[in-house]
This record gives sequence, C-alpha cells and structure tokens, in this order.
Amino acid sequence: MTTITNHMPTAELQALDAAHHMHPFTAGAELAAKGARIITRAKGVWLTDSEGNRIIDGMAGLWCVNIGYGRKELADVAARQIEELSYYNTFFQTSHVPAIALAAKIAELAPGDLNHVFFAGSGSEANDTNIRLVRRYWEIKGQPEKRVIIARKNGYHGSTLGGGSLGGMSGIHKNGGMLAGIVHIDEPNWWDQGGDATPEAFGLARAQQLEQKILEMGVENIAAFIGEPVQGAGGVIIPPSTYWPEIQRICDKYGILLIADEVITGFGRTGNWFGSETFGIRPHIMTIAKGLSSGYMPIGGSIVCDEIANVIGGAGDFNHGYTYSGHPVAAAVALENLRIMQEEKVVEHVRDVANPYLAKKWAALTDHPLVGEAKLVGLMGSIALTPNKATRARFAGDQGRVGYACRERCFANNLVMRHVGDRMIIAPPLVITPDEIDVLIERAWKSLDECLAGLKAEGTQIAA
Amino acid sequence: MTTITNHMPTAELQALDAAHHMHPFTAGAELAAKGARIITRAKGVWLTDSEGNRIIDGMAGLWCVNIGYGRKELADVAARQIEELSYYNTFFQTSHVPAIALAAKIAELAPGDLNHVFFAGSGSEANDTNIRLVRRYWEIKGQPEKRVIIARKNGYHGSTLGGGSLGGMSGIHKNGGMLAGIVHIDEPNWWDQGGDATPEAFGLARAQQLEQKILEMGVENIAAFIGEPVQGAGGVIIPPSTYWPEIQRICDKYGILLIADEVITGFGRTGNWFGSETFGIRPHIMTIAKGLSSGYMPIGGSIVCDEIANVIGGAGDFNHGYTYSGHPVAAAVALENLRIMQEEKVVEHVRDVANPYLAKKWAALTDHPLVGEAKLVGLMGSIALTPNKATRARFAGDQGRVGYACRERCFANNLVMRHVGDRMIIAPPLVITPDEIDVLIERAWKSLDECLAGLKAEGTQIAA
Repeated sequence: MTTITNHMPTAELQALDAAHHMHPFTAGAELAAKGARIITRAKGVWLTDSEGNRIIDGMAGLWCVNIGYGRKELADVAARQIEELSYYNTFFQTSHVPAIALAAKIAELAPGDLNHVFFAGSGSEANDTNIRLVRRYWEIKGQPEKRVIIARKNGYHGSTLGGGSLGGMSGIHKNGGMLAGIVHIDEPNWWDQGGDATPEAFGLARAQQLEQKILEMGVENIAAFIGEPVQGAGGVIIPPSTYWPEIQRICDKYGILLIADEVITGFGRTGNWFGSETFGIRPHIMTIAKGLSSGYMPIGGSIVCDEIANVIGGAGDFNHGYTYSGHPVAAAVALENLRIMQEEKVVEHVRDVANPYLAKKWAALTDHPLVGEAKLVGLMGSIALTPNKATRARFAGDQGRVGYACRERCFANNLVMRHVGDRMIIAPPLVITPDEIDVLIERAWKSLDECLAGLKAEGTQIAA
Repeated sequence: MTTITNHMPTAELQALDAAHHMHPFTAGAELAAKGARIITRAKGVWLTDSEGNRIIDGMAGLWCVNIGYGRKELADVAARQIEELSYYNTFFQTSHVPAIALAAKIAELAPGDLNHVFFAGSGSEANDTNIRLVRRYWEIKGQPEKRVIIARKNGYHGSTLGGGSLGGMSGIHKNGGMLAGIVHIDEPNWWDQGGDATPEAFGLARAQQLEQKILEMGVENIAAFIGEPVQGAGGVIIPPSTYWPEIQRICDKYGILLIADEVITGFGRTGNWFGSETFGIRPHIMTIAKGLSSGYMPIGGSIVCDEIANVIGGAGDFNHGYTYSGHPVAAAVALENLRIMQEEKVVEHVRDVANPYLAKKWAALTDHPLVGEAKLVGLMGSIALTPNKATRARFAGDQGRVGYACRERCFANNLVMRHVGDRMIIAPPLVITPDEIDVLIERAWKSLDECLAGLKAEGTQIAA
C-alpha cells in the first residue's frame, strides 16, 4: 500500500501543499507564506494536527461529520463494498443494490411524498440537478416560460455555476459568471437588517418579499423558490418564527415549487431528521449531501416528490446525471451511516440531550461583553459580535475583521469555530457529549476574552 | 453492519429501484416498466448481475475503472483512511496529508508546468471550476472582457449547468438552461460530416473554425478553448492527425488558454498518462476525474499551469470550492490507484500489449457487413454502423435505432458495449488481457451478426 506518512515534518508538508495544492475559497499566496495547518487524525469530535495538538471540532468538518469521525463500521462497509462492487453506473438501464437500498431508506426517512432520489456527488451538483428538474417539470406541464427561480441574498447553494447562481454571495457571483433566470430577495437576518422592527414583524416582511417578487415578475414566469431552512454559510441565520409559515403560504397560493436546501440542516442537525420538519416547511424537493454520509464519502442528491418524479419520468429521457450518481461505495457508506444514526438514536440525542445542554450555555454567552445575540437550533448556532449590544452596532473598519481575529484565537485555543463576517458559528458533530460541550464553551469563552483584550489594546470601545 | 443483501429476488430489487431511484439520462417510466438490470459484483473486467450472468465490461463502468474492479489494496486503503481521518476540509487555511500527497503525485505525472491541482468531486464540478479559473485569470490580468469560452458541438464536459453548457449536446442544453458566453464550433467527425474531403483536409478545416470564431468574436473577448483530446460521450471521435496541431497553433497565435478535458483520456486510456501527450497538446489546464481513482471514489479536479495558479493565487481569495474538494478518503484511494498503475506498469500494458493486440482485431471488424470504419486509440475505440460503407450512409429512420438494437444484442450476449447514435463504442478496463480481448471481440461479432440478421428480417438493405 501507498505510504501516506503523517510523520513528515510539518514544514515539509506545508511546502508541498503550497507548491501543488490550490485550496477552496483561499488566497493562495497568503496561505503559502503562512503555511496551512495540517490535520492528520480525527476521532469523535476531536482532531489532531501534525504538531500533535488536540482540537475540538465545533464545525463537524464542514457541517458534515454528523456521527463524528473515525467510525470503524463505516471503514468496514467501505472496504467490503469496494471488494464486492467498487463501481458501477446507473445509466443505460442498469442499477445496483447500494443505490437502490439507499434510495429506499432516504424515501422512508423523508417526510410527505418525497419518495424519489436523484443522486449526485455533492450538494452543489444536486442543486444543479434541481434547476433542471423544476424547469423541465414546467416545460412538460406546458408552461415552459416558468423558468425563474427565486432565491435569497446571502443564501448558499454550492459552488458550481448553477449552485453559485442560486446562492446569494456576491463574491461568488463575480467569480466567473451567473446563470440567467435566477433572482434574489432579501434574507431574514433580523440582527443585521431588522432595524426597529420586532423579529416577528421583520420575518413576515422578509417573507412577503417573495409575494412581491412573484407579482413583479409575473407568476407565469416563476418556477420555484429555494431556501435553506436555516442559512448556514451565510452565518447560521435562524429566521424569525413568522418567516417560513409565510413563505409556505405564498408558495401554496401561487403554485410555486418549493426547494428546501437541506445540505446542512438534513440528517439531524436541527433536532429532527430534516430542517423542514423543524420549521414546518413542505418542500417539493430537498437538496441533500453532507450529513447523508456524515462526510465520509462524497455523495449528495435531490429528494423529489411524487408529482415531479412522475411527470419527469413519464416524459422520455431526462438528459442529466453524473458518473458518480449513486456511487456504490458512497451509497453503502451512507446507508451504514443512517443505520448508525437510527440505531444509536443520534437525532434524539440532539433533541433531548445535546441541544438542551448546549442551549443554556450558548445563551449565557450573551453575558460576554462582545456577544450581542446567541442563537441556536438543534446543534447549529451563531453569536453576533458587536461593540454595542443595545444598538446592534457593527465594528468600525472591514466587516469580518473582528470575526477573523476571534476565529484565529479559537484555533490557537484548539477549538474550530468559524466566522462569517463578525458572527461566530458552530455546528459540532451531533454525537457531542455534555462534557465535550463544556470544553467547547470553555474554549469559546477564553477565545472571546482574548479577542476582547485585543480590541481593548487597540483602543476599540465596547459598550458596557 | 447494514445488510445490503444481494440475495433479494431481482424483481423485488427492480420494484424498489422503480419506486425510489431516479436514473441519470433515463426515461423513468419506461425503465420502471422494463426493470433495470442489477449489477451485484465485479472483479477485473467482469461484472455479475443479480441473475448470475457473467458480463464482460467493455466500458470500464463509465470509462473509469482503469485498473479493473475489486482491487483489495484500494479497499484496505479506504478502510485505513476512514479510521485515521474520515473527513476534513481544505478551506480556512487547513490541509491534510492525502490531498497534499495526491496533488504532488498528480503534478509529478502531468506534463509541462501543470504543477497545481484544484480538487473537485467530479469532472463536471472541475469544468465548473475551469470556467471560473479562466475568467478570473483574465479579470486579474486586466482583461475582464475576455470571458467567452469556445467549445465543440457534440463535445461532453459534464452535466452541471456549467459543464453542460461547455458540452455541445443539444438535449442537455435544452434541459434547464445555458450559461452565457460559451460558443461552439463543429466537431472533427470525418465519418459523419467529412463529405468528399480527405480526413486530413477535413481535420484541418475543422480546426480552422477556431480561428474563424476567434476573429468573428474578437480575440479581446475570448478566454479559452476547451476540448476532449478524443470526444468520448460524443462517440469516441478520434480526430484526424491534422486537427490538434492546428488547434494548438491557433491557441498559441492568439494567446487563448487551452483546456484539455482529460476526464476520459487521462490516466492511461490512450496509451500515455494523458491524451494530451498522445495528441501533442500543451494545455494550460487539464480536467481530470474517472481514471484518477479508477472510479472507486468520486473525485475529480483541475491540473493548472504555473502561470494561472500564480496569477490567481496572488490576487486574494478565489471564491470557489467544494466541501469534498480533496476528500481524504477519495484522495488516499486515488493515490493508491496511481501507485498500482505505476508499479504494475498499466500504461505500458495499454501501449505495448493491449492496444496492439486489440487494434488488429478491432480493425478486422470492418470485415463485418455492418461496420464502416473501426477506430481505436489506446483502449478507446468505436465502429460506425452503416448500410453502405462506400457512401458512409445512415440508416433510414431515427438515428441511433440500429445502435440501440446492437447494444441490446451485446447486453443479451453479456458484453457491455455502448452506442452513441449508430456508433458502437468501447473503453474497457486498461488491465484487460489478450484472452479477455478475444472474448470481447467474439461477443461483439456475435452481437453484430444478430443485429444484421434483425435488420435483414425487417427488410433493410445492406450494401455488399
């Protein structure tokens, strides 16, 4: 076997990394000068780096390692599947058992009549699939002009050209192109944008932008609305309680297809199997990835309702699909991941144990001078850093400067917590225990204190 | 562990498949009525289905299983990597050993100064990356209007919206949308479109369309040209010898970036590590996937030259990337695949053994009354079915009807050979032995004979 040694000196690994490896969402030259942190091992919620540091992972990798790292059962299944059927495709009227069994299991877990799965390799690819699905659906229904998809500013739906266009991140839009026929309404981000309104009134108003956009563009041109139940990469923006019921009412009223991007919120993250259940959303399509395999294998997909699957399936070839759609090894590993989640009651653990325990400690972070609000649903949460809690003020200078500094303190304290602008976010593995939550919170406090000290040293005023 | 039994009756598996699994590039209702063929096991070049049939795989899965199915070394590496580091991301200034080691290995194998790897989960995703890379490159160079990418009709570059737009398949273009700024020139398909020209004159003329398109649109608007060294999904269209040198000359003359989509041709398929070497192409970017891991794991990427990597890396954040970019398990398995290919001299086997042996037998297929031309490079080949070899005539009725019938005969004879229109194509695992080539050819002859008998029975005239 190849020796992928973890015993090379860190500096050598960093040099090789800088010479040959282009990182996502990264300034290459800057990282090359600084040197990447090299993660070498992981178990449960714990990472180890090439210097031997033990780091608690508050982000579950990238929102994906729901059952925690290093489960031997998944290693065994992957090995067995590779020996049995290491690859086959599902084109050309063929299928295989792992894809069939996983599709059936997902249909069993998904709510309502979301009974059909189109597999992709990632959430990005699945959202590209969704664009084709909804536009093709309306074409077959004799309404080919219904092509516009309404999405949200600061939403995130992946990094393909299609997924990036659905997302509402201007940095991505500017980077290479946008697909036509996608428009964005404002996000339900009360802390940053709610002004004097109550969160509830603000949530309602933001949802009603959907109705305004439909009327403005003409319902005859609108194919679908897409949204994450909770915006993830946008900063864990948990919408006011009024938001999703109003979105649902509007989609129902105008017959607009509703796509819930459950890439982050799916598979237990919010304390139910799907975020749509937590927020009372009844989508026609769900985008899934990440937690589906707990990130052990690249796999994603679209869960599709009966009506859309039947209409598309009955109208000849659907000209779309990926070499790795339903990859047998990825599918077998995902199925084993779901088995473990069910057998070990991981979703119940989030709902009954981890969320209640974390929720108290998370809320208490608002006692820290820098923390304006602390929001949490299931095991995804965020805190807003601010120099003035009462006015919800922003820090002077570049947005994200303080968040970045706080993230760097966290990393120095062996805690992975991510920043989005000046908001700090977490989404730990769902199996995190109360003791581990204590460690996470303790390191978060320490990092916030250090960040506060740094701000004071540079003369930034923090309101009492 | 989950029991993914292969011992369910075929009919039950087919019913579950029909109820829950949406297949790529498939008419769902038709397949549901017919029932999918269920592949249950595979070893080397051999598949086994749920009825116990032993099938020789002339397509290496989907052009990907270069080292053959079921290698235990890859199972062992996957299992070990899952236990050690089942996932980590390469965002946020972190890295890990498998991504670093694989990037370094790819840089070592790739020609010229293609020294940098941006990882994706698939060829589709990698081509979306490429669109962003070339447009971003010119933007940083102060020529933001250089955005147009010239591609080819009947090319294939994946099934994301970006990849599908680069591709030249009208069925995909119609299915959901096209990205702006991509234009297509004609393909170097002499058999179908060459008329009275010699292949060499035709190849030159088709390449010169690139120059015409550049001049027509203005070189100041052109970012890049993309092409597969050999069109794969388009029907294994091996271009005339004059084609690529002229394309290279034109790209050099006008300073157009050249992207070689090596998803199929990479990693030994044409008898060299990359198709670009076989055809004398000097690309700035290569798209890779499939053979990189022999399809055992979903992984793809872009191999990027020094100039582009340095320009983009030096200009701040490159706002793009995938959760599974450089996935540690996929990267570790790909690395082991490349180790095996090097150690067992798989590329040399293609060049010195399998290609020479197959080439003779493949060429001899033109003795069959239905076969007009037989083309082969390395281990990818195609034959053109025709009712008249001299005139290169098409069959009456729907294009692809005869090809489909021939594919069905192949499948009934336990040979996977794919059809593209009325062209039959193969791309077997690179480890195929002369004895196995004999089986493949024997079954191909039998299938062609049965297809011919069927055509005669329906009264189709075949020229002597």
